[in-house]
Amino acid sequence: IRRETGWRKEKDPTQSIQTAKPLWTRLPFCRVTEEDLAFFRKILAGRTIVDPDLVEPSNVDWLKSVRGSSEVLLRPQTTEEVSQILSYCNSRNLAVNPQGGNTGLVGGSVPVYDEIILSTSLMNKILDFDSISGVLTCQAGCVLENLSFYLEERDYIMPLDLGAKGSCQIGGNVATNAGGLRLLRYGSLHGTVLGLELVLADGQVLDCLSTLRKDNTGYDLKQLFIGSEGTLGVITAVSVLCPRKPKSVNVVFLGCETFEQLLKTFQLCKGMLGEILSAFEFLDSECMRLLNTHLKLPNPISDCPFYIVIETSGSDPTHDAQKLHNFLEEAMTSSLVSDGTVATEEAKIKALWSLRERVTEALTHDGFTYKYDISLPVERIYQLVTDMRKHLGNRAKSVVGYGHVGDGNLHLNVTSPSKDPALLAAIEPFVYEWTASCRGSISAEHGLGLKKRNYIYYSKQSQAVALMGNIKAMLDPKGILNPYKTLPDNLKQ
Amino acid sequence: IRRETGWRKEKDPTQSIQTAKPLWTRLPFCRVTEEDLAFFRKILAGRTIVDPDLVEPSNVDWLKSVRGSSEVLLRPQTTEEVSQILSYCNSRNLAVNPQGGNTGLVGGSVPVYDEIILSTSLMNKILDFDSISGVLTCQAGCVLENLSFYLEERDYIMPLDLGAKGSCQIGGNVATNAGGLRLLRYGSLHGTVLGLELVLADGQVLDCLSTLRKDNTGYDLKQLFIGSEGTLGVITAVSVLCPRKPKSVNVVFLGCETFEQLLKTFQLCKGMLGEILSAFEFLDSECMRLLNTHLKLPNPISDCPFYIVIETSGSDPTHDAQKLHNFLEEAMTSSLVSDGTVATEEAKIKALWSLRERVTEALTHDGFTYKYDISLPVERIYQLVTDMRKHLGNRAKSVVGYGHVGDGNLHLNVTSPSKDPALLAAIEPFVYEWTASCRGSISAEHGLGLKKRNYIYYSKQSQAVALMGNIKAMLDPKGILNPYKTLPDNLKQ
Repeated sequence: IRRETGWRKEKDPTQSIQTAKPLWTRLPFCRVTEEDLAFFRKILAGRTIVDPDLVEPSNVDWLKSVRGSSEVLLRPQTTEEVSQILSYCNSRNLAVNPQGGNTGLVGGSVPVYDEIILSTSLMNKILDFDSISGVLTCQAGCVLENLSFYLEERDYIMPLDLGAKGSCQIGGNVATNAGGLRLLRYGSLHGTVLGLELVLADGQVLDCLSTLRKDNTGYDLKQLFIGSEGTLGVITAVSVLCPRKPKSVNVVFLGCETFEQLLKTFQLCKGMLGEILSAFEFLDSECMRLLNTHLKLPNPISDCPFYIVIETSGSDPTHDAQKLHNFLEEAMTSSLVSDGTVATEEAKIKALWSLRERVTEALTHDGFTYKYDISLPVERIYQLVTDMRKHLGNRAKSVVGYGHVGDGNLHLNVTSPSKDPALLAAIEPFVYEWTASCRGSISAEHGLGLKKRNYIYYSKQSQAVALMGNIKAMLDPKGILNPYKTLPDNLKQ
Repeated sequence: IRRETGWRKEKDPTQSIQTAKPLWTRLPFCRVTEEDLAFFRKILAGRTIVDPDLVEPSNVDWLKSVRGSSEVLLRPQTTEEVSQILSYCNSRNLAVNPQGGNTGLVGGSVPVYDEIILSTSLMNKILDFDSISGVLTCQAGCVLENLSFYLEERDYIMPLDLGAKGSCQIGGNVATNAGGLRLLRYGSLHGTVLGLELVLADGQVLDCLSTLRKDNTGYDLKQLFIGSEGTLGVITAVSVLCPRKPKSVNVVFLGCETFEQLLKTFQLCKGMLGEILSAFEFLDSECMRLLNTHLKLPNPISDCPFYIVIETSGSDPTHDAQKLHNFLEEAMTSSLVSDGTVATEEAKIKALWSLRERVTEALTHDGFTYKYDISLPVERIYQLVTDMRKHLGNRAKSVVGYGHVGDGNLHLNVTSPSKDPALLAAIEPFVYEWTASCRGSISAEHGLGLKKRNYIYYSKQSQAVALMGNIKAMLDPKGILNPYKTLPDNLKQ
């Protein structure tokens, strides 16, 4: 343990993050010693990683936008090991960065300085599946897509699905309250997660791993940890209520001339597709341009200002096809949509979905990306994109909007050839003030992590934030769990 | 303020409640003085009730099983008034019993001693309804059925429905995390409640009244209050996500010879009715006997050991009828069900539903009722009724089972001609130990309130209960909010 810790100058996150106070510094946690490593090696033989090349991928986030300088990566396999690690770190005052699939977009999943990285990747066992109730219980490190495969063989599906499914882990999904593509149909994790097992900062194991749909014995403690981004405890196991696998899935890709028509199509769709509607997503023509340019994905229909992806999932292929047919006929004859294509076979369904799912990837090829994940009243969501374009003029390379119409969730992204502090200053706080003026959320599903923590007051009352601080202090008095994340700096003085 | 406060001897709740420690006493809260009344009258002119006849209904619970001796009933109309009341009571160390429709079944909604009753009945304004998103925002005192009527006119429905809908209030529903008849389809309030406005013990107003489907800015504080039974804060307003009103509703009433067949029918039903299934409820032949005897409700089909109520809600009457027809044909030809009747018109639907909804009422006519609300793995739920019958032999008048099969939630009720401590001693802790042995919940949806608080350890780990105590102490350091409820006595020393 000799290398200099702390942010390297060129990677200073404050360059891309506007905060009320210009800089923060490493909190006075202890630094890892040889004795500490000896302890970790004793309980995690062969799973205490200190080789810088092996630790490196865990120091950098998926977007390569933030970088920590941790020198220790721990890979526990059991809850008991996590408990021993945290108990030790808490007594030694060593900071810990819990890490799942490291697919987060707000810098919440990597260390900021030299926090010990506690990876759940080896905690990947499925513990139980009850085929009558549809309740799956598994360790936190199970990869979402693996769980989906496992369930599909048993005629069930996961209640959430997202672009990062191939590497994100269920523990991280829960810790960040991931939303994704199926929220419209199956609701949020606050409803579908039935139980959690957690290890608190002091190593105590909190067993809330119920598999019951209903349990009103006292306060529902697990809810506190859903969306707490690893700052209140480490999730070690999850039980989740899974829906039956639909017998029929259809995907439609439609084009609209105006966002108003898109909203009318949404209303029509809710009424006519009703209980079989499972997703209503959109992207704008700028997204399509980036998909064409950077990923060579062709537009399957004629060029339009707006595109919609609608998915239906139902139990009767004939009924579903008929509902979809009736809806499409109505949408076409009333001129709400100008072109479209339907997919019922899996390969074409995947191809249409990838137009929506791979926008994030296309953006990474377009330049340095400023990402905003905003909740708004659904009728306002595209106005923010239009206003941002006007506001930025030709200062941005691309300003694109896409997201989950059904949830009122806009992904607004602004790219530039390289990091551009002047552009950032034009975007923020404009985007946050605009959002706050509609009582929107400045982070719909991505969380606050490192990058957005100081903007919490745009969406939350100061009393509420103070209460969050009290909860953090109660559960993690030394603040060792994922420091510098979620809560604003001005709570931590 | 002259009358003796505290429990009257003959109403001592401990006679009907087995606790680890035999008795508790009034905590050292102050008693209401003339100065206090003068303060309340100043802020609540005409709405500070001290006439014992007018206070009386708020001192007794719906089951008439517990009785407090409060002498003051406050009826605020605004959040600001609730804030002033709590701020004052907290500074004066006066205990407060928040009360909604007073329909709870565990003694949580009435005072235990002389707590001031804070009724939300006059806080019954609908604040907003967004017909695009389906989000309803209203004050806490709105009666559930009134909200349903309001929404149905606008082509939406409430995501919850329960027998007490005519008098229960949405604030109380949220405070107790009410489950009810639609949970199977629309999920729990942890998923459907989007926002809450709360007043904390010290009078601080906590504004978490978001109307967004997604908001990951910090910890989801409102979740803590859902199901906290008024012990952490007073809910003053609620925003809830409402589903579209179904275009077609069907109800089927079926008879089964064995509980195994009933479970097989449930599995078949989930597969064949899929996304249109909105309720799967059951009652046993003992329930039917009580409905016949006490409420003169006739059995619409031939006598069977078990009865099922299935509801479908969908967007296409033809498709729904066809799915239902296919399911019924399969259930009949495979001899899973032995008789049945279908309802599509509203009057008959209501009549069939009342067989399920009025069991509670029939029980009150059968004698003194010992009520248990248990969550179990669904395949075990009726075994508890059978075992209890065997265990009690002829000591009970009736032992009946009914409930929400789809949620694994059994309502087990035992009646006797009058209060019977020997019978109680035979039921408890037997029922709790049985439940705990299956990792079930000893209170699926009713909560703990006064009556069940000391049984929490049968369903929750002691570390979890201790953490609940810490949360209570953080949010309500003087413990003025709904004392003697939810948390076990041994936390309060």
